[in-house]
Amino acid sequence: MKIIIVGASGTIGKKVVEALKTDHEIVTAGSKSGDLQVDITSPESIEAFYKQVGSFDALISTTGSGHFGLIKDATPADYKKGIENKLLGQVNLVLIGQHYINAKGSFTLTSGLLATEPFLNFSNVTLINGALNAFVKGAAIELEDGVRVNVVSPGVVIDSPHYFPVFPGAVPVTMDRVTAGYVRSIFGGITGQVIDVY
Amino acid sequence: MKIIIVGASGTIGKKVVEALKTDHEIVTAGSKSGDLQVDITSPESIEAFYKQVGSFDALISTTGSGHFGLIKDATPADYKKGIENKLLGQVNLVLIGQHYINAKGSFTLTSGLLATEPFLNFSNVTLINGALNAFVKGAAIELEDGVRVNVVSPGVVIDSPHYFPVFPGAVPVTMDRVTAGYVRSIFGGITGQVIDVY
Repeated sequence: MKIIIVGASGTIGKKVVEALKTDHEIVTAGSKSGDLQVDITSPESIEAFYKQVGSFDALISTTGSGHFGLIKDATPADYKKGIENKLLGQVNLVLIGQHYINAKGSFTLTSGLLATEPFLNFSNVTLINGALNAFVKGAAIELEDGVRVNVVSPGVVIDSPHYFPVFPGAVPVTMDRVTAGYVRSIFGGITGQVIDVY
Repeated sequence: MKIIIVGASGTIGKKVVEALKTDHEIVTAGSKSGDLQVDITSPESIEAFYKQVGSFDALISTTGSGHFGLIKDATPADYKKGIENKLLGQVNLVLIGQHYINAKGSFTLTSGLLATEPFLNFSNVTLINGALNAFVKGAAIELEDGVRVNVVSPGVVIDSPHYFPVFPGAVPVTMDRVTAGYVRSIFGGITGQVIDVY
């Protein structure tokens, strides 16, 4: 199976690559690293990226960032920037990618526990993650040729200890549990599902 | 209490005005109608609007539109347009309005049953509604001076029969049940809540 991993150099992405590379053809992608570069905030860049990759069987996105900060200091521009990155960046990988993916292929995006469990400073990311979780439900009933779409919603991961202080009381999850979420999305037959890992 | 209703001329908005106008000072607003005009897609217009209104105790938004159409035909531009309208339009009413609202005031936004119950042609609105439902959870824990924020998530309403064909099997909800959701948000003390009315 030919599997694209966008965000392959990230904390989660590199573990997903490790888990899949023995048995599959992996195309790693990132904004600056990987086999191919793609700027997820640019639909033109995404289109060019898919043209380079050619047909594929699965895309995993483990990328995207939102705005960090208290709402009292947040501006419409802060919110928009986050939405254009982690939300529309990942959604556009599906909107554009649906025209390149093989029949019975799958998209797997990444949201996070903030979707349902708010923490201070993360109202923008909470919005984004809730949007991603809803998006896969709406998209799944429409994608054609057996193409599926799911989202993995991880908690704070054990390999990102610098995040522990801003998620007080969140129990870190092991990397193998997170990786298993992506494996289940690709090979488990499900669609329109939020795979919570926390 | 001084209550702003954005979208006051709409199907839901006009019922909310009726329910509240006897006992409260109502400021009706819309893109083209109402006491004051505001273009929710423009942060500058929202800022100017609040400057005109002055301080207030509650804002209800019953406005905003998303993209209608199957995902196979949807472009990144279609998605972005909907997000800038129903999602960022309403969110920006809160981001900017938090600096004008009175202590213990409340914001009440409008999402819809699509957030959790997908229907064909509505993947963009599903994303938007899910984002709004998540946003109020993230925002509620940060808003200061006792300011609250909730979202009403109505089903297809009985006064919009033209929508019945695109929500097959959705049981229409009566207007008084929907109006009650906004009343509960303003006067019921809750915050960070999704008030489902379907």
